[in-house]
Amino acid sequence: MKQERLLLALDFGGTKLSAGLAKSGQARWLAHRRVPSPSASNAQSDLEIMMELARDLLDTVKSPLAAVGVSFGGPVDAARGLVRLSHHVPGWEEMPLQQWLEKRLGVPAAVDNDANAAALGEHRFGAGQGCNSLMYITVSTGVGGGLILNGRLWRGAEGMAGEIGHMAVDPDGPLCLCGKRGCVERLASGPYIAQRAREWLQAQPERGSLLRALAGNDLETISAQLVAQAAAQGDDLAWEALEVAARGLGMGIGNSANLLNPERFVLGGGVTKAGERWWDVVRRVARATALPQVHFEIVPAALGDDAPLWGAIALAEDL
Amino acid sequence: MKQERLLLALDFGGTKLSAGLAKSGQARWLAHRRVPSPSASNAQSDLEIMMELARDLLDTVKSPLAAVGVSFGGPVDAARGLVRLSHHVPGWEEMPLQQWLEKRLGVPAAVDNDANAAALGEHRFGAGQGCNSLMYITVSTGVGGGLILNGRLWRGAEGMAGEIGHMAVDPDGPLCLCGKRGCVERLASGPYIAQRAREWLQAQPERGSLLRALAGNDLETISAQLVAQAAAQGDDLAWEALEVAARGLGMGIGNSANLLNPERFVLGGGVTKAGERWWDVVRRVARATALPQVHFEIVPAALGDDAPLWGAIALAEDL
Repeated sequence: MKQERLLLALDFGGTKLSAGLAKSGQARWLAHRRVPSPSASNAQSDLEIMMELARDLLDTVKSPLAAVGVSFGGPVDAARGLVRLSHHVPGWEEMPLQQWLEKRLGVPAAVDNDANAAALGEHRFGAGQGCNSLMYITVSTGVGGGLILNGRLWRGAEGMAGEIGHMAVDPDGPLCLCGKRGCVERLASGPYIAQRAREWLQAQPERGSLLRALAGNDLETISAQLVAQAAAQGDDLAWEALEVAARGLGMGIGNSANLLNPERFVLGGGVTKAGERWWDVVRRVARATALPQVHFEIVPAALGDDAPLWGAIALAEDL
Repeated sequence: MKQERLLLALDFGGTKLSAGLAKSGQARWLAHRRVPSPSASNAQSDLEIMMELARDLLDTVKSPLAAVGVSFGGPVDAARGLVRLSHHVPGWEEMPLQQWLEKRLGVPAAVDNDANAAALGEHRFGAGQGCNSLMYITVSTGVGGGLILNGRLWRGAEGMAGEIGHMAVDPDGPLCLCGKRGCVERLASGPYIAQRAREWLQAQPERGSLLRALAGNDLETISAQLVAQAAAQGDDLAWEALEVAARGLGMGIGNSANLLNPERFVLGGGVTKAGERWWDVVRRVARATALPQVHFEIVPAALGDDAPLWGAIALAEDL
């Protein structure tokens, strides 16, 4: 491995912009900055804010920059270094981000989507170190994934691999935005946990008093986090809304284990903070869904919100 | 690629033993033999019959043998060249087949299971030539699969990858032997198509007259092939039994496409001869299950029953 090269990582998230500097072969930040995305931003303004962050960081060190890696919160054509679009910020359509950065910073750049970057980050610096194969799954606003096979990212023929969120596991399940029924994301993501709890509270006025109280009787304020909080305090309706999510995710993981037989599943994202009972159901259903001969671990991500940024360092390290 | 090496392929199938000779880099048999498995066979007798086949083949050529590849119809530890067991023939438990063949034939040997071998065979010599990634699926007595990613077989951490047959796609579906409900194999394999048709004929005495007639009114003689034949001739009950199978397989393929984003799916096995209507439903449901951004083809296998034997040649070629 090339030693002591100065690497820059950039993370264009849905709600925040982050940048970090690290030396190759060293798993700690030399410098690290994060700012919230401006509410009415566009691609150009996000890029300029990011370049300011980068300049600030680079001013703190003496060595010259060797390479830059980027995690982008949206579909990316990694082979061509092209952002396809952002679901949150306008102006990113078909943006040649790799080329733009190479011209601006004068060093090689690599770009990938946040799920792939987080998979790389956890594999090289986090809960997947030493694994020849793993699947990283983020369970948050959406459900996405990244695959490490033979120690390398498997991106798929079109960069679309890892889409466990739209694995259908129940043809009679609720309708997903993608048009199918019973997708893992439709069952397991944070916003749908909250929606399910709200719908059940409306339909069952005699239940969920604890969750209602936590929400100040304003159902609109209910989030997945609040559902998990109520479940932990013994609210049955809240727990059942969470259990549906855990079962859907467990089926998705078990099916993925049968198909790919990876050593480990690494789970990140806000919903994974829903408590031990949620983890127990995920693990139990995944185990029951996988064949007895297929073994795996399911572990929490180690790098938290920094996983994509560490993945961007890994992308830069490999240039 | 090493040229002009003489390669031997052996296929220990559930009901037949096959052997073939080919030269590296040449996609045609120099010699080829197949015999049915004796009904009361065991590992030792199968091995001796196979060695006779091999000797017969080798007597027809002058060049010395360079390597031998094996497809085995049951779970294999490919890394260690070990057969785990056979579901059909006793005596195979933990049999070190690679070592046995290397000692007996004096050349390097490689062993893999039949789904992986067929995937390799179709990739190198059949319907998957030129693909960087593909999933091979056999739809027969069971449903199994093999994955080619980055031009190479992905076997999984324990050699268990490709088990699309036990992907659960319907939690309210029929109970599978594995203990889960709604597995792809439980919906789509040949014996279960026949069982479904028989059950429906028993429950709905006014329907399926065409299928009943084809079976000579003896429901026990109904096979998936007969169901497909009746469906092709316009029997609605037969077609519905087949459609359930096609839908289950289509969901499994669409989910696999979302997870792996391979270029192509190659489908082999007896059930794939069920007619264009079956293919249409498989393709339509797979397309509806996959995300719009995920593209793929679904094509019939090109090598038929010889796919595992050609895969064994590919295994030998790579030694």
